[in-house]
Amino acid sequence: QSSVTLYGIVDMGVMSSNPHDTAAGKTGSTLATTSGALSTSRWGVRGTEDLGGGLKASFNLESEIAAGTGVAGGSVVASGATTTGVLFHRASNVTLEKSDLGSIQLGRMNRLEYDAVIANDAFGAANFGGAVRVAYIGSGAVPGTGDVRTANAVVLKSANLGGLVLAYQHQFGGQAGDNSYWSGDAVSATYTAGKLQGVASWSQNNNAGGTKNDSVRTFGLNYDFGVVKAYVGHIERVVSNDTDKVKSQYVGLKAPVTAKISAFGQYTKVSNAAAATGDYAAVANNDAKVYAVGVTYAFSPRTTGYAMHGTSQNDGTAKVYVSNLAAGAAAGKDQTATVIGIRHSF
Amino acid sequence: QSSVTLYGIVDMGVMSSNPHDTAAGKTGSTLATTSGALSTSRWGVRGTEDLGGGLKASFNLESEIAAGTGVAGGSVVASGATTTGVLFHRASNVTLEKSDLGSIQLGRMNRLEYDAVIANDAFGAANFGGAVRVAYIGSGAVPGTGDVRTANAVVLKSANLGGLVLAYQHQFGGQAGDNSYWSGDAVSATYTAGKLQGVASWSQNNNAGGTKNDSVRTFGLNYDFGVVKAYVGHIERVVSNDTDKVKSQYVGLKAPVTAKISAFGQYTKVSNAAAATGDYAAVANNDAKVYAVGVTYAFSPRTTGYAMHGTSQNDGTAKVYVSNLAAGAAAGKDQTATVIGIRHSF
Amino acid sequence: QSSVTLYGIVDMGVMSSNPHDTAAGKTGSTLATTSGALSTSRWGVRGTEDLGGGLKASFNLESEIAAGTGVAGGSVVASGATTTGVLFHRASNVTLEKSDLGSIQLGRMNRLEYDAVIANDAFGAANFGGAVRVAYIGSGAVPGTGDVRTANAVVLKSANLGGLVLAYQHQFGGQAGDNSYWSGDAVSATYTAGKLQGVASWSQNNNAGGTKNDSVRTFGLNYDFGVVKAYVGHIERVVSNDTDKVKSQYVGLKAPVTAKISAFGQYTKVSNAAAATGDYAAVANNDAKVYAVGVTYAFSPRTTGYAMHGTSQNDGTAKVYVSNLAAGAAAGKDQTATVIGIRHSF
Repeated sequence: QSSVTLYGIVDMGVMSSNPHDTAAGKTGSTLATTSGALSTSRWGVRGTEDLGGGLKASFNLESEIAAGTGVAGGSVVASGATTTGVLFHRASNVTLEKSDLGSIQLGRMNRLEYDAVIANDAFGAANFGGAVRVAYIGSGAVPGTGDVRTANAVVLKSANLGGLVLAYQHQFGGQAGDNSYWSGDAVSATYTAGKLQGVASWSQNNNAGGTKNDSVRTFGLNYDFGVVKAYVGHIERVVSNDTDKVKSQYVGLKAPVTAKISAFGQYTKVSNAAAATGDYAAVANNDAKVYAVGVTYAFSPRTTGYAMHGTSQNDGTAKVYVSNLAAGAAAGKDQTATVIGIRHSF
Repeated sequence: QSSVTLYGIVDMGVMSSNPHDTAAGKTGSTLATTSGALSTSRWGVRGTEDLGGGLKASFNLESEIAAGTGVAGGSVVASGATTTGVLFHRASNVTLEKSDLGSIQLGRMNRLEYDAVIANDAFGAANFGGAVRVAYIGSGAVPGTGDVRTANAVVLKSANLGGLVLAYQHQFGGQAGDNSYWSGDAVSATYTAGKLQGVASWSQNNNAGGTKNDSVRTFGLNYDFGVVKAYVGHIERVVSNDTDKVKSQYVGLKAPVTAKISAFGQYTKVSNAAAATGDYAAVANNDAKVYAVGVTYAFSPRTTGYAMHGTSQNDGTAKVYVSNLAAGAAAGKDQTATVIGIRHSF
Repeated sequence: QSSVTLYGIVDMGVMSSNPHDTAAGKTGSTLATTSGALSTSRWGVRGTEDLGGGLKASFNLESEIAAGTGVAGGSVVASGATTTGVLFHRASNVTLEKSDLGSIQLGRMNRLEYDAVIANDAFGAANFGGAVRVAYIGSGAVPGTGDVRTANAVVLKSANLGGLVLAYQHQFGGQAGDNSYWSGDAVSATYTAGKLQGVASWSQNNNAGGTKNDSVRTFGLNYDFGVVKAYVGHIERVVSNDTDKVKSQYVGLKAPVTAKISAFGQYTKVSNAAAATGDYAAVANNDAKVYAVGVTYAFSPRTTGYAMHGTSQNDGTAKVYVSNLAAGAAAGKDQTATVIGIRHSF
């Protein structure tokens, strides 16, 4: 039993948000508590067993918490159906790893394209400001609300090959006699050389009946200059043979101001955003811009106070938001949000 | 990880209960297992981190268990909506505390008025016999079934000021452009001097649209005479401008008979009880009386056997019950219940 | 807190399954991930407290995990109603035990007849191949899908009486004024003498209104020859006064091939299988046969790789399956399934 770890994060804050009409002025400002602005609140169980000869087995079960109300778990999209109230919807998997060869993982885990994006984002996996919040990741996904994880899947990952790690992910479909139904495939390559890291991914997911498929391609870089770490990335999504692509492009910076204080900011440009209906295909000229800045104060390695501020500007019928925790942005309207909070890890 | 504690209670018993018609005699007796008669069955995770300089961070996640079936979690009322199946519906919060100043807590936690009542009750938070079971606590609550906790809330608590602890709680509402919608405020004062403790609380919760609000005021005392501890309390609830108030008044005693055996009893009088419909406003002359006694045997500090017996007598259309685990009392009818069980803490 | 153990199993594999029509050939083959083929994936919390004088208190809370998606919990049938999404649906109970006398357990736990069957089965409680998967255990149960546990129950178990352990289980019903409604009773006797073990059980469960009851009787033996362990068993179920009985009879073998490898196989014959409708009464000449074999490789005591293969052959309108994880067998059609996987315990 010695290897079992119970862990988690409770991240609570207070957010002021304001979806506003650039023509008619501000409306509908909201002041509310938020859970997970800096890091999604969660609890989980994980462990590793050394099997000898370089072989290791491990597992992970992880649940989101909406800490303001205590709701645990969330939705899973698998085989074309959405199941709500899934407890371990963030992770539920077992891994067998050989140190010089690589690993095989089975169950539910992050999509490779999601891991690829958050690796090169100044806001990382925060529910505020980052590019992953405005990228179209996950089958049938609208920005930030899609299922950024996959279920009933297998991941093959290589050992570290001189700085390069390759990964392949297959999501099994769920229709008798049709194994392509709602199945998906993804590959990613991560290259680390000194202070430089680059990550690229490609994925394709089939819809029901194989009549449509979504392809997401991502590429990103980060470089640590010491006084500041710089991030740049490109994400695009194509639905079947559509001529327009949804594209997100971003640049970010993160600086260690003092030993305890970090500051970060990011600018993201979204082109041809979907109007969040139908099959989420690109809509020409539905462009948006997201600006966000933040600062963290480390009380300890486990406890962090933070403040973040950002705005999204939408053209056409786009409704890209700066945070999925903010009061909803209306089509073509802007959204501004400010949050302060505390993140406690255990 | 050293500071994480997994804890809980499994409390199971067998209860005989009997809602009966004082005119026509007893009907509908039920013999059934019960979970949580002495203390609500639960499991949770909590931890504390010392941040140095008198500063501490802590968290708590806690879930009820209906141990007879294994159902975990319960309902949460927030922003006018009820969410069922919420895992950590007993507690989901993070706290930052400065030893000489006080603390700030964010998330979901007990209402201040609930903590105020159970502090001065011979049955404490038991699901049997106590005053809190017949008090109208929580927005739109009927006795014993309301949400005695609050969500999306913040609590500011003072340090111990020579025996006095003050607390303020704000529940954030949830309507864009209307921050008063379903919001609430509460204050409490706890004073401890030697063997005497007094607790007073005042709270007000707004309904949707601000058209109604509920105000609950409580006051209670307990004094430890050594051979017996005595409890007395007063609870009243007013809905908006209604002329009648729902009132509960109670006296209780708890005695350490031997080192392992405790005996306790309480008498509660309810005036102008609501008929548990509409907005739970007081109904004149809907009075009720609750009598209850109990005894516990401590196998160890963690494991306790118990027996409790009680009855409620209802006038008019009141349906106050002696235990929310008993077969339901009908309007104006009496209810009697007897339970034996075992409570095991871990 | 020292006695609390957080434990579990993540068992994931890939299964090829094929329900086929013996007349028209194979159709609808499926390749999919599976959770729990060898042992149901789960997580739980348990603990024991020594109360002195041979007295012990213990508790157990346990939840199934569908590890491919992360769904935790399952259904509970109690008092005639099915509750879905019950977190601790595998176990939720507290036990008080006196070493020389026996124990009393309250809450939710395995049915005695279920424990009796899996004790004498080469596949044990696997979700593949075993007799328990094709037995009609649990009120209103269809094979393998019934509630093999009971809720709101009490179990009295004797101490070990020279190799003999006796147990009695009562499931409380849930209708005011009718304590027989949906109640149930079961007894079992387990006898161990050297390398021989025999288990017999008898149970009866009442339906609503007491108009019907189901009786299940089981008997099984296992004997450890050293080079191989042999299993044989008989299960029958009678619904009220029906003249036909559903019967399952099986023989199994399990052999330790090397220190790390075990091989096992079982043949089960089902007579008068129900057509899985109505009250699940026996249907004459609805016979089925199930053949299954498996092999396990122990990486460590906690981590096991496995492969299993089996087939079910159905006559009439029987639809007995070889695994409840396989693509569903149609009435009178056969089903074949092959699975490989890894089971990791923590």
